Amino acid sequence: MIEYLEFAKDISFKAKEVMLTYFNEENVSSYKDDDTIVTVADKIINDYLIEQVKKVYPNHAVYGEEKSFGESDYVWVCDPIDGTAMYARGILVATFSLALVYKGEVIIGVVMDPFNDCLYTAVKGRGAYKNDKKISVSDYSLTDKRSVGYFDMYPQAEYDLYDVVKVLNQKCYNVSLGSIVRGGILVSEGKFIFSLFPGTVCKNCDIAAVKLIVEEAGGIVRNLKGEEQYYNKDISGAIISNKVVYNELLEIINDNIKIKGSYNN
Amino acid sequence: MIEYLEFAKDISFKAKEVMLTYFNEENVSSYKDDDTIVTVADKIINDYLIEQVKKVYPNHAVYGEEKSFGESDYVWVCDPIDGTAMYARGILVATFSLALVYKGEVIIGVVMDPFNDCLYTAVKGRGAYKNDKKISVSDYSLTDKRSVGYFDMYPQAEYDLYDVVKVLNQKCYNVSLGSIVRGGILVSEGKFIFSLFPGTVCKNCDIAAVKLIVEEAGGIVRNLKGEEQYYNKDISGAIISNKVVYNELLEIINDNIKIKGSYNN
Repeated sequence: MIEYLEFAKDISFKAKEVMLTYFNEENVSSYKDDDTIVTVADKIINDYLIEQVKKVYPNHAVYGEEKSFGESDYVWVCDPIDGTAMYARGILVATFSLALVYKGEVIIGVVMDPFNDCLYTAVKGRGAYKNDKKISVSDYSLTDKRSVGYFDMYPQAEYDLYDVVKVLNQKCYNVSLGSIVRGGILVSEGKFIFSLFPGTVCKNCDIAAVKLIVEEAGGIVRNLKGEEQYYNKDISGAIISNKVVYNELLEIINDNIKIKGSYNN
Repeated sequence: MIEYLEFAKDISFKAKEVMLTYFNEENVSSYKDDDTIVTVADKIINDYLIEQVKKVYPNHAVYGEEKSFGESDYVWVCDPIDGTAMYARGILVATFSLALVYKGEVIIGVVMDPFNDCLYTAVKGRGAYKNDKKISVSDYSLTDKRSVGYFDMYPQAEYDLYDVVKVLNQKCYNVSLGSIVRGGILVSEGKFIFSLFPGTVCKNCDIAAVKLIVEEAGGIVRNLKGEEQYYNKDISGAIISNKVVYNELLEIINDNIKIKGSYNN
């Protein structure tokens, strides 16, 4: 396990270097078929990961946001830049995320915040760390004045969280920073009380590392129905939260969530 | 006018220094009567501004988020740290904002982004600049795939924008970064197409500088009813946008906005 963690950390340091190198370059972005943005840096990081996995763990597979490779019980699940739309606009919130998944279960998770130079790491069963210092989720309730919640909303989302957010905003301050991984690590270190991910059908790479880091920090990560998630199939969005707010949050979601199609028709 | 601009720039450089110095310090935040957060850095910057105005322009007044001083036709309107809740959590989006207002009209506006080391400046009638390079708003429509919109929502807001955001999110990607000034300068340099500010009753200091910077960059800033704003009375929220989307945006807001009380009752 420690060998896998060291491998993941090495990839993270490379990702940081690439993200900082290309951060203020012009004209490095383009749009994919689903109208979401991709930059040169996303592609370089994704390619580098595949190259390294082929070299060091040739029997493992890679599931990357920009490119995948192979099939195996061991899959390196990566979002090379989570928050690309912000990254491409010079907003300092994007992150790199990498997880090692064994038969659908996350066993290693790392997230790099290149702008604050912080590496978040977790090994299954061994706690969560930020730059090697133990971190843990908060114990704030929804109505604590110190509480901040996080949600994402985008046209490609699987679920519609407007009515959920409407209820939550009567209880606490909520933001939407453009990177669900950023929202997740802020939960893991106790700075946000929850992050809600509305999901993307057939796309699974965003929060695999966050899942383990938050749980190892004492939090809960489930899909929007409150079910356990496995990263070898669709995850159906996510509730990422501390233990205090989880049940109340799940109830508010149950009562107010909508499948996207019902609004778009 | 140039003398006023130079004064505002000097205050901005001091604000940057203070924001960076206190950025990773622990235990520097507390909560005000309205349950919003304030840090030591907010207070130091606000005090420094008052001290300098007393010294250099003793006949001018200061309207600061944390402290005010005097009465005059000339008022220095300041939000020492816009996005304090993010600043206190180590999220790199907060900004410093300072405007010189003459009889309600903004004649000088400066915004400091300490984390990207960018100073946004405008003098009435003379264009908008980022680190002395001319900037301008985008000409993207609401449904352009390059378009990103911005909105704020918080329990203390004057207006309720949920239903507005629900409609807008069918057209473009929207985020809520926790600093309306950040949202505003991103409009001024063409990176966001609009920013919506739900307002705070009897609090006027947030977007005075953004008002001038965005308009000098070719954009539009009005209240949520589409009326001109004067910074010596309540501003009633704000539409901050490029010229292409303004009319459509105003129509969507007219059709969907709610005064906060109607939800909270």
